[in-house]
Amino acid sequence: MRPGGRSARVQQSVHQAVRDLEAERGRDALTVPLIATRAGVTPSTIYRRWGDLRELLSDVAVERLRPDAAPADQGSLRADLEAWIEQFAEEMSSSVGRTYIRDALLGDPEQGNAARCSDYAAEQLTAIGVRAAGRGEAVPGVEALLDAIVAPLMYRILFRPSDTSAAYTHGLVAAALDRR
Amino acid sequence: MRPGGRSARVQQSVHQAVRDLEAERGRDALTVPLIATRAGVTPSTIYRRWGDLRELLSDVAVERLRPDAAPADQGSLRADLEAWIEQFAEEMSSSVGRTYIRDALLGDPEQGNAARCSDYAAEQLTAIGVRAAGRGEAVPGVEALLDAIVAPLMYRILFRPSDTSAAYTHGLVAAALDRR
Repeated sequence: MRPGGRSARVQQSVHQAVRDLEAERGRDALTVPLIATRAGVTPSTIYRRWGDLRELLSDVAVERLRPDAAPADQGSLRADLEAWIEQFAEEMSSSVGRTYIRDALLGDPEQGNAARCSDYAAEQLTAIGVRAAGRGEAVPGVEALLDAIVAPLMYRILFRPSDTSAAYTHGLVAAALDRR
Repeated sequence: MRPGGRSARVQQSVHQAVRDLEAERGRDALTVPLIATRAGVTPSTIYRRWGDLRELLSDVAVERLRPDAAPADQGSLRADLEAWIEQFAEEMSSSVGRTYIRDALLGDPEQGNAARCSDYAAEQLTAIGVRAAGRGEAVPGVEALLDAIVAPLMYRILFRPSDTSAAYTHGLVAAALDRR
């Protein structure tokens, strides 16, 4: 796959076609030929690049799970983590969020789409940690924060119907910070 | 669906057919008609009961993820948890374990197959906790243990290629017990 240029344009138009068609006709109507026509490419372009519809949907899901802003500054590590995980929980536990998580996981593990989702969370937690360190706060490592805050939330969304409200997520933050 | 009797026999023969055919011909060869022929039922029996192949594979996966023994008694809560999570991590992070986890997750969330996987882990942790309480040990709640020990492991298996060896899982147990 060539980087940038035509390759980037194809990706953008195909992703946009998936999003538009999904909104217009619903998910079950999506087919590679339909998407190709809307995107102005040949079906074989899609098959060559993504392999199949499942892999394409996984790719689109990861793009939509990409955070569009840096975590808000609430003045302290605890407040930043609480605000971030509360919003993350709302997005991921919504019906749309659950669909994207499933789609991302359904892609070929070798393609690394699920890992990209985890990297997004790690990047957001890193930004929060760097800001807290700048305030002189002690900061747990990113991997420890993923285990303590992100993992329980994702586990409950995927495996265990649970309350994922602020009462729960703030408890995760407290456990992560009080553990040290 | 009728409980017991014919219903249970159909489930058993269809599950067995899936396992046998998967071993003999590989997963990609599985089709509902092939499974039906091997199980001695009609394809419509399978479609009526499971809906489609994906739901059937999800059902088979959950059955295979069911623990076949109570957690071993290692003499203390910490040792019991360490032994249990170490074995759980080995099983779940194996290639076969990963396939079953994915299959279980791919079933219709309404059918509750993923929740059954989580219930299995909760039951094992409850057994460990009851035994520890009998020894007079203080025991964290099952939901707290799921968040601290099981969730990080499953998150790493699904989303974040990581070391899931005993060095890692014993650290999760230490964090769960030292948190109190």
